[in-house]
This record gives sequence, C-alpha cells and structure tokens, in this order.
Amino acid sequence: MKKRVGQYLMDCISDVGVDKVFGVPGDFNLTFLDDIISRDDMKWIGNTNELNASYAADGYARMKGIAAMVTTFGVGELSAVNGIAGSYAERVPVIQITGAPTRAVENAGKYVHHSLGEGKFDDYRNMYASITTAQAYITPENAQSEIPRVINAALYEKRPVHIHLPIDVANSEIDVATPFEIEQRPQTDVTKYMTMVKDKLQSADKPVIITGHEINSFNLHEKLEQFVKRSQIPVVQLSLGKGAFNETSPYYMGIYDASLAEEDIRNYVDQSDAILNIGAKLTDSATAGYSYQFDIDDVVMINHHHFKMNETKDTEVSLVDLLDGLNTINYVNNEEFPQFKQPKAHDYDLTDEPLTQETYFKMMQDFIREEDVILAEQGTSFFGAYDLALKYNNKFIGQPLWGSIGYTLPAILGTQMTDTSRRNLLLIGDGSLQLTVQEISTMIREKIKPIIFVINNDGYTVERKIHGENAMYNDIKMWDYKLLPAVFGGKDEVMVHDVNTSQEFQKVLLQIEAQPDTMHFIEVKMGVHDAPHKLNAIGQAFAKQNG
Amino acid sequence: MKKRVGQYLMDCISDVGVDKVFGVPGDFNLTFLDDIISRDDMKWIGNTNELNASYAADGYARMKGIAAMVTTFGVGELSAVNGIAGSYAERVPVIQITGAPTRAVENAGKYVHHSLGEGKFDDYRNMYASITTAQAYITPENAQSEIPRVINAALYEKRPVHIHLPIDVANSEIDVATPFEIEQRPQTDVTKYMTMVKDKLQSADKPVIITGHEINSFNLHEKLEQFVKRSQIPVVQLSLGKGAFNETSPYYMGIYDASLAEEDIRNYVDQSDAILNIGAKLTDSATAGYSYQFDIDDVVMINHHHFKMNETKDTEVSLVDLLDGLNTINYVNNEEFPQFKQPKAHDYDLTDEPLTQETYFKMMQDFIREEDVILAEQGTSFFGAYDLALKYNNKFIGQPLWGSIGYTLPAILGTQMTDTSRRNLLLIGDGSLQLTVQEISTMIREKIKPIIFVINNDGYTVERKIHGENAMYNDIKMWDYKLLPAVFGGKDEVMVHDVNTSQEFQKVLLQIEAQPDTMHFIEVKMGVHDAPHKLNAIGQAFAKQNG
Repeated sequence: MKKRVGQYLMDCISDVGVDKVFGVPGDFNLTFLDDIISRDDMKWIGNTNELNASYAADGYARMKGIAAMVTTFGVGELSAVNGIAGSYAERVPVIQITGAPTRAVENAGKYVHHSLGEGKFDDYRNMYASITTAQAYITPENAQSEIPRVINAALYEKRPVHIHLPIDVANSEIDVATPFEIEQRPQTDVTKYMTMVKDKLQSADKPVIITGHEINSFNLHEKLEQFVKRSQIPVVQLSLGKGAFNETSPYYMGIYDASLAEEDIRNYVDQSDAILNIGAKLTDSATAGYSYQFDIDDVVMINHHHFKMNETKDTEVSLVDLLDGLNTINYVNNEEFPQFKQPKAHDYDLTDEPLTQETYFKMMQDFIREEDVILAEQGTSFFGAYDLALKYNNKFIGQPLWGSIGYTLPAILGTQMTDTSRRNLLLIGDGSLQLTVQEISTMIREKIKPIIFVINNDGYTVERKIHGENAMYNDIKMWDYKLLPAVFGGKDEVMVHDVNTSQEFQKVLLQIEAQPDTMHFIEVKMGVHDAPHKLNAIGQAFAKQNG
Repeated sequence: MKKRVGQYLMDCISDVGVDKVFGVPGDFNLTFLDDIISRDDMKWIGNTNELNASYAADGYARMKGIAAMVTTFGVGELSAVNGIAGSYAERVPVIQITGAPTRAVENAGKYVHHSLGEGKFDDYRNMYASITTAQAYITPENAQSEIPRVINAALYEKRPVHIHLPIDVANSEIDVATPFEIEQRPQTDVTKYMTMVKDKLQSADKPVIITGHEINSFNLHEKLEQFVKRSQIPVVQLSLGKGAFNETSPYYMGIYDASLAEEDIRNYVDQSDAILNIGAKLTDSATAGYSYQFDIDDVVMINHHHFKMNETKDTEVSLVDLLDGLNTINYVNNEEFPQFKQPKAHDYDLTDEPLTQETYFKMMQDFIREEDVILAEQGTSFFGAYDLALKYNNKFIGQPLWGSIGYTLPAILGTQMTDTSRRNLLLIGDGSLQLTVQEISTMIREKIKPIIFVINNDGYTVERKIHGENAMYNDIKMWDYKLLPAVFGGKDEVMVHDVNTSQEFQKVLLQIEAQPDTMHFIEVKMGVHDAPHKLNAIGQAFAKQNG
C-alpha cells in the first residue's frame, strides 16, 4: 500500500496507542503536520513552546505508556532537551520527532536557517544520543525498519527516542509491506537468580521490599502486588515512584525516605536483613542524602537491566522478566511489621489565621479522592505531597530525580489530555509556575478542567532551605497570579479563587467539589519560610552534600 | 592573594567588562551566587527560566561585547542550549557557567538529583561541545589557566563557551598569582592575500562590498568604514547583520536580499565582477533562498577563519587581521553606483481603517531616532523592520540565521540592562511573544523602560506564508495581551496602549514620545494574512526549499 513516510510514521505511533501529538510548528515540519491533523485517530496539541511540549508529552506518557511530540530542526529540538532528558532519567518513553531540512539541502551543505551556519547537520541529533535510548535518521529506504526499531526501543526501555525526519522524506511515498508490530523480546531465564533470592529470604528475619519509579514506568503494579500477596513481605515506597505500590494494601508500610521516615518504618527497613529493591533507585532526594542505615550488602537490586545480589550481576535482564521470576518463588513471610498509619480526617482547626503548609497538606489529604491524578511540583508541593495517603487508583506524578522546576504545569496538560473526565490536581509553587506559566493557555484552549493550586510564598523556598535563606537570588517578582486565566483567554472558563486562611481554603474546596465541570485556579498564600518539615531536612542534606 | 575560585572567576568576568550576570538559582550554584551578589561591580539578574536567561545574555553581549550567565547542573544548563546554540551560530560570546555537583559526588558516581541517575556526569558538558567554542571543567589546580583560556576563546571567536564549575571548586581557596589578561594573538601576515584582492579590484568594472553580522560581532564598524571611505567601493548589507555598515554613509546602497532587493541595487550586485563578502554569510533567509545571480567565482570571502579567493583559502586567519589588511590596499573605485533611497517621511494617510503592515513600518520609520536600539523578532516584525533606514548609532538586532522565535523578548532585557537610559524598541508578534512572555516580569522588576510593540495577528503568520495558510497548527490561543503588565506586577509602572488604526497608532506614538520615563506596552492589531511583502516572498522560497 502506498503511503507517505509521514503517514506511515503516524500509523506506527497510532498503533502503540497514542492519540494526541504535542509540539510547535516550524517550516521544516509543516507538511508533516498535515499528515497528523488529517487523521481521525490523532489530535495535534499546539504548545506555547517546545520545552513545555516535552513536559506535556512526558505527562501524557506517564498515563498512556508512551507519547509523541514534534519540533522543528535546531531551535525547536534544542528547546526540548531538558524535558527529554528528564524523561530519560525517570524512564518515560517519549518519541521526539524533529522535522529537518531536506536531504538535498543537507548534502549540499547549505547555510540554512536553524543550522549553525557551517554546513553541518548532525550536531543536534548527536546531542540527543546521551538523553535518548535510540536515534534514527529516517529515509524512504529505512523507514520500515528504523521507525519500528526506535518505537520498540522506547517501549522496551521506557525511555525517549529521537527521530530525525527530513521533510522531503516525510513527504516521500513508500510501499508499506507489513504493518507495525510491537516486538516481543525473548525472555531471560532468571531461575538461578530466583533460587538465590529465595535462599536469602528464607534465611532472613526481617525481609522488606523497597519499590519505586520503574514499577510505574513498566506498569508492573499488578505483578508486584501479586508477589507481595503471595510472599506477604511488607513494602515501602520511595518518593521517587510514589504510586508504585497500592497504598491501601495491608502489606504497605509507608514512605521510606531514610532518616526522615516514621521511626518504626525507618527502624524496620534499616534493620532488615533482606531488602528487595524492586524498580527503585536510592537517589539523594529519595533518601535524604543517602541517610539509610541498612547494610547495602543485604540489598538485592531488582531493576531494569540491573539485577545484583552479592557478587552476581546481570546488566541485561529486563525488569518484567525479573518480576515474573519473583512470582515463581514459593516463600511466605511470617514476620510482624509496622502498619501504615492512615492519616486522621479533619485533623486541623479551621481558623482565620494565615494558612500553614502543615494544614494545607492535611486539608489536601481530605480533599483527594479515588481516581484522582495528582501532580506535585519539586519544591514545597512535592515534599509535602509525597506523604499523602493515596486512595484507590490515584496516580501520583512528581519528578524528584530530574527535579526540573516548572515541569508539572505543562505535564498536567499532558496527563489531563489522556482522559478529560478524570480529576487532575496540580500542586505547584509560584517560583516554579513562572518558568512554564504560558501552558495554562493551552489548557484553556483545549477546554480541559484541571484544578491548579498555586502556593504564593514569594520565591524559591526550596532553595532557601538549602542556602541563601534571605538572599536576593531566591526572591522572585510578585505577580498578580489571579489574573493569569484572564490573560490566557479564560476569563469566563476558569474559576479563580483566593486563599489566605484554612477557613477560606475549606470554602474553596467545597466550591471546587460543587463545580466539577470547570477549571479551577487557586492562589494559596503562605509564609515565605514555611515549608513541609521534610523539605527542611532535605534542604540540610543537600547543603551538606554541596559542602 | 587568597581567593575562592568563584571569586577569581568573577574577577576575570569583571575584567572583560561584564557588570550583570543572568541566570536562575539552583542548589549546585547557590554558594557561587554569593560571590556574585557580594560584589559592588556586578549585579545578579534573576531570570524566569534558563532559556530566557540565555537570550538575555545574548542581547547583553551584542551590546557589550560579551556576557555571562549561570545555571544549575542538568535541568538548567539543558534549558539554555537553544539560546547558546543561537549565540554560536550568530557569533555572540556568552560565558555559560554551570554550577555542578561536587567532585566527591561525581567521583563516587552517586545517583544525585539533576543527573540521569546512572552515575555519569559528563553528558551535558559533552552536549555543549558542538555549540560552544571552548569548554572547561574547572578545578582549583587549573582555574588560573582554564578560566583565562575559555574567556579568551570567547573573545577571540565571538562565540559562547561552557564552564563546568563543581560547587566545591567554586568554594575552594586558591593563591591568585597574576590577574587575568586579554590575550593578544600574533597577527597573520595577509600581504599576499591583499595583493590578490587589489589585483581583482583593479581589473574589475563594478566592485561591491556585501557585509553582514561578523562586523557586529567583532565590532569592526570603524575599520570597515575606513576601508570604504578610502576605496570608495559601494556597500550593501545582508539582513543577517543589518547595522554592520553606517546607513547614512554616501557609499551605502541598501539591503541586498538577492531577488527581493530594489531593482537597481540587485542589478548592480548581481552584475558585479568583484564582490568583497566581508563578514557576511549568504544564508537562505538573507538571500531569499540563494536567489543571487552573481558569479560565485567573483566573490572574495573575507570572513573570520575564512579567506577564500579563487583557489586560495585560509581557514585560520582572523577577520580583524583581514580588515587591517584591507586598509593597506591602495585602490580607488570610480564606478557610479545607485544611491540609497531614503524613505519619505509621512508617506501614509492617517485613517480609521484597520492598520496594515505596510503603514505600520512606514510609521515606525518616522518614529525611530538616533541612538535607538531596535530588536526585531523573526516573523513579520523582522521582515518588515530590516528595510528600515537606520539613523546615526542605531543598533539593530534580529536573529535571521538561528531564527528561534521568542528570542527578542528576553534579548531586550539584556540589551536594555547595558544602558538603561538608551531607548530600546522591541518589535514582536503574538506567536513569538507567547514562547518567552514571562521575561516581561524581569523587565518590570528591574524597572527598565523598553517600548514593546506586539503585533496581534492571531497566529504564526510567518509559518502561514510558508505552508498551511489556514491550518489549525498555525493558530494560537487569543490572549488578552494588554493584561500582561498587570499580571507581572507592573500595573502602575507600565503604560499600556491599544492600536487598531493608523490614527490610533499615531496618537500612541506621540504619547510614547511624551512619556519617555516609563515602559510602554502596545498591542497592535493587524490582519491574519497581512504581511510585509518580503515575508511573502521568503515564505515562498522556504516552501520551495522544502519541496
């Protein structure tokens, strides 16, 4: 069947479940965009800039399993590298497509706009090599092997890929021989590893599972819970990957953030003699600066491409195969473990005093409900929100490894576009909001209804906790945040709220509940130096690390 | 003398004339920022995001000769790559300093935030290698050789450099032996080239000079004008580098944009038999898709690291040495040439009809005055503005080679910060403004007074002229632009104007003249498909190039 390469590429992208494409037009991608907007199964979401597009695609992929975005050559693709690198670090598969000059222009070494003006055309795609898991330069001849190869790599590695698509190639016709197929890679035999794990568990007094973000990336929640139910080993989560484990399970103990964890959880984990680290990464922000006290030799590393126990190491094996292997182990844990402490409802007084971070998160705990998608920006929002007790089918999204401030605002555009009927909450602060604020415009344009809580505490509080508590570089310009929806054309579509006290916050939360069919934008004023207590501790750990 | 490495670095940066540093704080640069804000000779300008910081630094460097900016590791430095790549392409020296994790963290291969989480720390600085002219990983041992080396490289090449500064290194004390010195490189003997050039000129009937952006980068205006006065060879400029030559000189013919140029200028250049291309690059956007008709063998290439005449080529020689060489040639041109046609004043009717692009630029021509700094955004603004006749000491800034939309808005923050008393004008459109809009906040915060003209024509008109005239991907969300200053905290500081007709525009221009001590923000509504006639032609050329 005759198709343009651009059409074939979009067929493949459709086949893996993508129905929205993010990006910004540019003259090297315009005719390819025609092959997106002409499809019934695909919608083009024009972003206000390419960094925001990459964040939105990341958010979409965290919900849908994979995402696609399109930029133009040079200017566009280079604006997206921070977002794509974040997707790489946190294992989120995004297909980044760059519409590029024709092969004729490239072969002639022309001084063309968006190039560095020296006749070279490979610099940008080379820059992508270390932040994507696969790269392809598409031609009509290789399209049917290279496009499936990189899309399959994205799916298998749960990491972004880069496609360089000269615009003449996108427009070239090819004979499409076979439809795209998702590649099934041969399973690795993990029997010998599982025998070792079983032996370790059987000789252990206090086994525990630490889990994290790779469970979300590889969508292995069910397989993990199945193993936990069979083995009855208690589970803690890192903040990096919150949502990896069902927080309503009787085997859930809580968040383990090393020295900051609840005492009984901390003691249990730190004294464990068999720690299965499943899809988790012990980063500085997840462990309050590596403050865990357990013996690292007692840890069995069960990550994608990384099984490690004592001297045995496998850097090829997939996480899926490892989870399947765990489910073949016959072992039942009998050790008692601390139960997860469900937060008390209404554990605060409603007053007309200034709202504190502590009360804000307690009230947020009462506000969230099953099925909510919660995005928490790196800063006071994340360090408060990762202690929220999640309910059935909540999805929690933060970015504590990559930690690029401003990420969550465009990301919620992406998450919400995967299901416009699901309630999406954004918890963000003023400093972060300023980086990517214009993407509110796209939310209004797409008529979606997220609920956006903006903490106005006059600056980069997360930085103040690390260094420069009152330094001018941690100050920001005070904006009139409540005008933002009107600026972006949403005067009549967005309900805007102002919160200074817990009484006001309660009233606003009730209004939001009462009006679910509209976007809400809430400015929440809080003290400059007020912060969730965990942020204070993490700030000290980071300051020490830099000392 | 004992100094911290961070102090020594800032001493060197101060020594080359920098007095403002742009950037965004992050925990890996905070203690280094202390060594910036504590100086009397340096001011920290906190930007709203790192891409905007890189654009602002570029604008500053185009005025001052060099600029400096600071980001944090990973997230920050990767957000800046598009801006830095633009500085590289258009030869603007920016010192990009990344505050990075300590050497101890790096050597231990720790999974630290802002890394890709795999214990590697060199990916980002490697990504900078192709978009900077020099890179350095600073240590206490190499600081006094590496810092001068890269700063001198920036000055010599007029291109950005990248400094990776582990935060423990910034805080380390060193014994500073000798102060920073600007390196004087040995001159190249260009006598033999100049003999060739002289022979070529003497045997020519119609010599001409095409000049462009490298004259601005290397600040060679005086040397060029001296050569022109002596040789009496007429000069045309490319749009890429407008401002390279004094437009009030009797030897100035006008803009040469190949097939789009005024007929008599086009004919003169296309029929020339000795074309000195001095600091100019014949890119697609500067030449309406390479539509020049002259014989390329008649061109003598006189660019930085690129002298070429017939078979003779030198890829080492500096542009400065070549200009000095030209000024040793004894040759006087006697050929008649077309005179630059000064635009007529008041060449329009004031009506209450919708304002057209044509009238807008004619009125802008009457509005600009000596010493103005004019920034024109790639789009209708640039393609209309590059035909403006500049006055004495006007500075004109566009970005037609790199062509990253959104660039000029943060750039005018940078240009204006070099001299707050000089009048700076920004000509930009709505589509571009949306990418980088939040930098208006920093302008209000710094209390500067640029005049910002925003064309509201409902979308990416520049793209519509290339492809997809009415395609939805060239539409943008309609904003309430006039609310922007109030959102960014400038309700009382910024005068906001609304323009629909030439009569209204005239009134607003008079108000601006009457109130020079305030920032002005003008929304100018124009038709969706209205464009300067040159943009229509360039659009067709770009579409053809992509065919």
